[in-house]
Amino acid sequence: PSAVVQAVARTGPLYIKMHDNDNVAIVVNDGGLPAGTEFPGEFVLKNRVPQGHKIALIALSEGAPIIRYDVVIGYAVRAIEQGSWIEESLVRMPPARELDGLPISTRVLPPAAALEGYTFQGYRNADGSVATRNILAITTTVQCVAGVVEHAVKRIKDELLSQYPNVDDVIGLEHTYGCGVAIDAPNANIPIRTLRNISLNPNFGGQTMVVSLGCEKLQPSRLLPEGAIPIQNGPYIVTLQDDVHVGFESMITAIMDMAKLRLQALNLRTRETCSAADLVVGVQCGGSDAFSGVTANPAVGYATDLLVRAGATVMFSETTEVRDGIDQLTSRAINADVANDMIREMAWYDDYLKKGGVDRSANTTPGNKKGGLANIVEKAMGSIVKSGTSAISGVLAPGEKLKQKGLIYAATPASDFICGTLQLAAGMNLHIFTTGRGTPYGLAAVPVIKVATRDDLARRWHDLMDVNAGRIATGEATIEDVGWELFKLMLEVASGRKTWAEHWKLHNALTLFNPAPVT
Amino acid sequence: PSAVVQAVARTGPLYIKMHDNDNVAIVVNDGGLPAGTEFPGEFVLKNRVPQGHKIALIALSEGAPIIRYDVVIGYAVRAIEQGSWIEESLVRMPPARELDGLPISTRVLPPAAALEGYTFQGYRNADGSVATRNILAITTTVQCVAGVVEHAVKRIKDELLSQYPNVDDVIGLEHTYGCGVAIDAPNANIPIRTLRNISLNPNFGGQTMVVSLGCEKLQPSRLLPEGAIPIQNGPYIVTLQDDVHVGFESMITAIMDMAKLRLQALNLRTRETCSAADLVVGVQCGGSDAFSGVTANPAVGYATDLLVRAGATVMFSETTEVRDGIDQLTSRAINADVANDMIREMAWYDDYLKKGGVDRSANTTPGNKKGGLANIVEKAMGSIVKSGTSAISGVLAPGEKLKQKGLIYAATPASDFICGTLQLAAGMNLHIFTTGRGTPYGLAAVPVIKVATRDDLARRWHDLMDVNAGRIATGEATIEDVGWELFKLMLEVASGRKTWAEHWKLHNALTLFNPAPVT
Ligand SMILES: [Ca+2]
Ligand SMILES: [Ca+2]
Ligand SMILES: [Ca+2]
Ligand SMILES: [Ca+2]
Ligand SMILES: [Ca+2]
Repeated sequence: PSAVVQAVARTGPLYIKMHDNDNVAIVVNDGGLPAGTEFPGEFVLKNRVPQGHKIALIALSEGAPIIRYDVVIGYAVRAIEQGSWIEESLVRMPPARELDGLPISTRVLPPAAALEGYTFQGYRNADGSVATRNILAITTTVQCVAGVVEHAVKRIKDELLSQYPNVDDVIGLEHTYGCGVAIDAPNANIPIRTLRNISLNPNFGGQTMVVSLGCEKLQPSRLLPEGAIPIQNGPYIVTLQDDVHVGFESMITAIMDMAKLRLQALNLRTRETCSAADLVVGVQCGGSDAFSGVTANPAVGYATDLLVRAGATVMFSETTEVRDGIDQLTSRAINADVANDMIREMAWYDDYLKKGGVDRSANTTPGNKKGGLANIVEKAMGSIVKSGTSAISGVLAPGEKLKQKGLIYAATPASDFICGTLQLAAGMNLHIFTTGRGTPYGLAAVPVIKVATRDDLARRWHDLMDVNAGRIATGEATIEDVGWELFKLMLEVASGRKTWAEHWKLHNALTLFNPAPVT
Repeated sequence: PSAVVQAVARTGPLYIKMHDNDNVAIVVNDGGLPAGTEFPGEFVLKNRVPQGHKIALIALSEGAPIIRYDVVIGYAVRAIEQGSWIEESLVRMPPARELDGLPISTRVLPPAAALEGYTFQGYRNADGSVATRNILAITTTVQCVAGVVEHAVKRIKDELLSQYPNVDDVIGLEHTYGCGVAIDAPNANIPIRTLRNISLNPNFGGQTMVVSLGCEKLQPSRLLPEGAIPIQNGPYIVTLQDDVHVGFESMITAIMDMAKLRLQALNLRTRETCSAADLVVGVQCGGSDAFSGVTANPAVGYATDLLVRAGATVMFSETTEVRDGIDQLTSRAINADVANDMIREMAWYDDYLKKGGVDRSANTTPGNKKGGLANIVEKAMGSIVKSGTSAISGVLAPGEKLKQKGLIYAATPASDFICGTLQLAAGMNLHIFTTGRGTPYGLAAVPVIKVATRDDLARRWHDLMDVNAGRIATGEATIEDVGWELFKLMLEVASGRKTWAEHWKLHNALTLFNPAPVT
């Protein structure tokens, strides 16, 4: 983005205009700006404008397009004077872009110069994937076993883990699927393949073990069918209903005995020098504000371009947050197949929301609006920039596993937990998460680097946020500076440096996307 | 049920026929019975019949009705000889009963003699409800805060709980709702009221505290609006995004400080003698087999009748497991309003399943079938008997809170976790769970009494199952015996005696029923 930062002095009034064609800009200053604030030679503020909220840079007549990111984010509900606060209720949202007649592969940039020589210390897997952490995962076929697995994981941590110094952690892959669900419904393939592919995440080193109940709908053979299982050195399933188990302790002992074998195998893994091309990065945003699309997300977009140049894989996601920019994406699709796959995912989600009686506007939150985002169009323009500028080389449907490198659109809901869960299933080994309002997000399976969009958040949450992109708004750093900083931090974290979420052991539950009914 | 137990000797071949009109019966013996087994004067088994599976008591011609529980559970796919195993594939499932023209209040039994003098030691709440445990609950508006709450709960348990000896536990009410969801969709009222009403469960004594992020869709004022909050001695909300929080430790300290106030208040609670009428019991089954409807569920049904006679509240649930017996329920409805409310819930669920491309037959599991249940009709007949014989005096839609006593149909999915979560929201203070295949189910908020349907399960899972109803199948105990045993155990557990799930601290996550889209 060609952002113009109106940043003469750190203490003076500041606004950011994202594109020459924009007729609005957002206020940078902490606490906002009072009515009467002068932007010399331009205008005087008619109202108090909160931080992150929009100022009318020119007078707008009723029905005039309101332009930000060079995109019509809405229309003026009534005439708006120059220098006024464009509060959310003054913006009439445009209808969603039709999905026919989209530009296909019209703006595909030629590949940028390869970025060579960047490496990290990772764990190589037999299947060619690379891990950033060395984790024993205990996957589950059904929620029924969750309490037992939780008990066993605690025992394994307390009694076994210290004997295997090369293993970072033991985690239970607990979830709410597996039984009491319509497992043969048309959309049930989504949660099933999600669970299957999570079990195969690179960080688990092909040593994932399975705890099954026995009578559940999601039988182990359905979760991990023959051929879909690169999991090594079988047998690897403990079934609680097996006749051999007499008493609770027998179940725990069986899980712990199997865990010992897996820990022995995992403990043989050692970090070795891997190319930056072995990174599989999932990017997303959550708790967004008007700065998300100005500071953190553009910096992530810059890092995305660096990763693609280095030969890595980057997934961007969040269907309702790219829906309004679908023309920007189809025009960057490397070929018509990729563009059509993206259109298919948008159409599927339009239909899914419609069946539930809503549309893409159901995405925005009170926090988004408080943070200055008038509607989903404005939010989407700020979200989509995480994808950088490279050609889009592939599309994943929800829960599918990656089969290629480069920049990939991994279709997921925008929900932070569902998006993270689906990116884990795709094979992510590093996660980047930007936030403006602030959220203590974390995942147990891969490190999460959290990027603050604002100085104030980075200051207050100094031991939760890993990177402060707020310096971009105040002119202390450029998008390029923070993009490079992020890129280098990714290599360090991939090599073992802990993020704040890891330091505090903060993580959220896996959350499946199940568009099919429960029973 | 007028079960005929063919139980001459503990070691001989045994079958159970549920009703005089039945033309099939199920095999009782552990391990099933081999081909050639003789039932003297009746027939010789044509095939091996697994335990719990059906024998044809007479020869059935192609298309003949197969009758169990005096109900047509299906039609013979081909001619079946007397003494044959009626394997699942030989049973053609009948269509669902139409929802018009149902019998309304035609079989309402007069109230049975009141059962007086049964009491337990409970905690009385200001709103008239009674608790069976004394628990500090920390509810959450959104999953974003789950990691922080988990960290805080651990600290509270380690550092504070022992100073408040009258408090049993501290639990985080974590869930996957609150943001990234279509919160204004037509069906979003279900998960929202569920979370609201769980916060008000009697076991939390009106001292529930709230941890909010700040920017989430489910704002605290929406979770617990003014007037819906009997929660006492406010302010009771910690908001992580509040400006006052600088650093992670500040959030944890704020939660712990508030927890101290709540623990002080809860610690003043003491058990006092309460009438059995103060019990609010939720009954459900999970991991069912053919014995569920023969042993455990009829015993629960007997106990249900005792509870109703004692003036208590009993909820039965699991819509797909009563759908095929809806005529039995509408005929027991105390009036036409109650019958129509039940019909409304059935119709809603039919439609919900249809939208997802399935019907009520999506309920059954591989374990059900392995256990002898041919289809959802047969399973439903065994499930519905948990409701006993009393008049049905009210209906709750999913997530609603109880407003009356007696026997209530609380409409929920059959999914163990979703059913348990919705019964918690209704105000349950004791949970009864029957299982044939076996599941280590538990809830953090209320005690769960688990009832095994079979001797073999009760023997192997001796430290997970609280009651063995399998003795009914072998003739060692009657339905009445086990029903009374359960009733008396309920009073003991309600008074503080720990269940096996509590002993091992086994519990499953809250699982919301959210029929609305995610974003
Ligand atoms: Ca987002
Ligand atoms: Ca997100
Ligand atoms: Ca059931
Ligand atoms: Ca159930
Ligand atoms: Ca507990």
